[in-house]
Amino acid sequence: MITLTSDFPSPYPAAMRGVLVSRTDARLVDIAHDLPRGDVRVAAFWLREVLPWFPPAVHLVVVDPGVGTDRAALALRAGEHALVGPDNGVLVPAARQLGEIDAFEVEVSEPGSHTFHGRDVFAPAAAAVHDAGVDGMDDLPALSPTRRYEKLEFPEPDLRVDGASGEVLVVDGFGNAITNLPGLVLDGRYGDAMDVNGEDVPIRRSYGMVPAGARLLVVGSHGNVELAVNGGRGDEAFEVEPGDGVELSW
Amino acid sequence: MITLTSDFPSPYPAAMRGVLVSRTDARLVDIAHDLPRGDVRVAAFWLREVLPWFPPAVHLVVVDPGVGTDRAALALRAGEHALVGPDNGVLVPAARQLGEIDAFEVEVSEPGSHTFHGRDVFAPAAAAVHDAGVDGMDDLPALSPTRRYEKLEFPEPDLRVDGASGEVLVVDGFGNAITNLPGLVLDGRYGDAMDVNGEDVPIRRSYGMVPAGARLLVVGSHGNVELAVNGGRGDEAFEVEPGDGVELSW
Amino acid sequence: MITLTSDFPSPYPAAMRGVLVSRTDARLVDIAHDLPRGDVRVAAFWLREVLPWFPPAVHLVVVDPGVGTDRAALALRAGEHALVGPDNGVLVPAARQLGEIDAFEVEVSEPGSHTFHGRDVFAPAAAAVHDAGVDGMDDLPALSPTRRYEKLEFPEPDLRVDGASGEVLVVDGFGNAITNLPGLVLDGRYGDAMDVNGEDVPIRRSYGMVPAGARLLVVGSHGNVELAVNGGRGDEAFEVEPGDGVELSW
Repeated sequence: MITLTSDFPSPYPAAMRGVLVSRTDARLVDIAHDLPRGDVRVAAFWLREVLPWFPPAVHLVVVDPGVGTDRAALALRAGEHALVGPDNGVLVPAARQLGEIDAFEVEVSEPGSHTFHGRDVFAPAAAAVHDAGVDGMDDLPALSPTRRYEKLEFPEPDLRVDGASGEVLVVDGFGNAITNLPGLVLDGRYGDAMDVNGEDVPIRRSYGMVPAGARLLVVGSHGNVELAVNGGRGDEAFEVEPGDGVELSW
Repeated sequence: MITLTSDFPSPYPAAMRGVLVSRTDARLVDIAHDLPRGDVRVAAFWLREVLPWFPPAVHLVVVDPGVGTDRAALALRAGEHALVGPDNGVLVPAARQLGEIDAFEVEVSEPGSHTFHGRDVFAPAAAAVHDAGVDGMDDLPALSPTRRYEKLEFPEPDLRVDGASGEVLVVDGFGNAITNLPGLVLDGRYGDAMDVNGEDVPIRRSYGMVPAGARLLVVGSHGNVELAVNGGRGDEAFEVEPGDGVELSW
Repeated sequence: MITLTSDFPSPYPAAMRGVLVSRTDARLVDIAHDLPRGDVRVAAFWLREVLPWFPPAVHLVVVDPGVGTDRAALALRAGEHALVGPDNGVLVPAARQLGEIDAFEVEVSEPGSHTFHGRDVFAPAAAAVHDAGVDGMDDLPALSPTRRYEKLEFPEPDLRVDGASGEVLVVDGFGNAITNLPGLVLDGRYGDAMDVNGEDVPIRRSYGMVPAGARLLVVGSHGNVELAVNGGRGDEAFEVEPGDGVELSW
């Protein structure tokens, strides 16, 4: 199985599919192709949340604002999974969730284009890794073990006795503002309210527990606190975007 | 085969795919993931139109504005098909098209989240139903037969000797305003015109039979009358939205 | 394998998938379903660029502004590939890339609808062609050999000693304005600049070689010159749209 993730408008993902089905019989499963253009952090967040739901697979990831520059191409073995993509940190948070990491640099011979390494470099590499298997990665001529690759860390929240300080990591397509605050800070407080950036907000287990259009604090499916609106956009109601601080006090 | 339908922005559908491919070898086929958020009626309409084109399959449907509230989880056997989703009526019009209905409540043990039952409740249930087969649903421990579940009816049109009264059910992505008026009201009138909400509109077999940008009455692929514009948006040209009345007179 | 291309909003592509999986075991691979509505030239361009990356397959293409009018239904054998869709030129540029063309008119018996031949005419024909194989197309009763079908040509650029004249063919989802000028006109000039419609623009191998938000000339993955912006929209920065002229001088 090979999963596909990119920030490519159609039909560019289809060119990658064509290369893959030309080279391997692997089953293909799409993760997303409408990730925000060139946003390595958002892509890294979603991959960390979604890939652990998959059985062992090769994950082809092309969110690559540095395509055609001197950034390297990377393949990570992570437990029984493998990830293939640009060496810009996008693969790393997910890989840490999937298992112990062994890193390989992918040798890039003169590619068919300087502008579409998803098709010309990463898809062929993903097909080769798939057919070799994760244990065969050590023997693939195009892969060289490396210890040097870009890391990517999400900011840690500050948890105190009387509150917590965090930030918005991403906003999902519903408008839920997903923070780095762990859901446990809401434990024992459901049904109550909490001060969020200076305003009182009800704490509930799910969206439908406040009236349509009302704000709430909720733990999203990723386990983190979300600033949300039932049937609406939390980012607009709370006036936040990724990187903005979130202060909770109780 | 398992089909997937939701109102989830990416990458949430991919988390459901991950759960499914972890639990079953079933082929996955996407119906839609961009349905209007939380709109049970629109989702029910489209499922009723599209699912009958499929061979026997399990249809996983997650348009679920009440996620995390006390609405039940439902599995319907409908002839050789099965449908799995929230008990809010969304499954019912399609199920009626697919065969005789036997309903089961899905037992929900403490789920992994209160906010994403698509991943944590419905996808596992769909995988279990798929692997058990429709005849095996009676023996699945998590399923209990029930006769109580939410129904959903679309409004009936009023057909008269000199006209008909109906309403717009949904607007498709092209802007075609799809009514509940059966296509037969146009029989024998193609090439002519008809009074629609007080204005004269040509009746044609297909969009390209009027000039680009011109309005027409046409029978859509679902068999109902559409208020349409060749190459444009019928909802805007006729100034209608779902729920609005449509008066035809001839 | 059957690939699917259309300009259909969801869930219309799913109805085609249902027809296909009811009639054939072929693997289905999506090319795109969000192509600009009714734009035969743009669809033809993308198919020409993407389909050659696929192994032999049947390519179902439904960009069909003339649905329900008297335009014919077409099946082309092109080398080891086949293409099925409306006879409006959309299939032709891709077919020329894929191999020698043999054309067949598809007999259309009274279809289930006059408005959705993708579901009622072309998907059944694609399934039949797939299961017959390209060599079996001559024996399919619904196919009649023909030499008359719509052609579609892209304009040729004018290449001179001191410059070149071309036009914008399509704008991709990133905003890159893709011209008909071959990439070779930039050979030997990387790192320099060139006059584009009267303004000086740097020539680079990839987007990330100019600052974020800056304009550049680059060869896209299709091999043609693009008017682009690193991380932005070239069409807006250069104020061009498909059909507009592009004058290069050096």
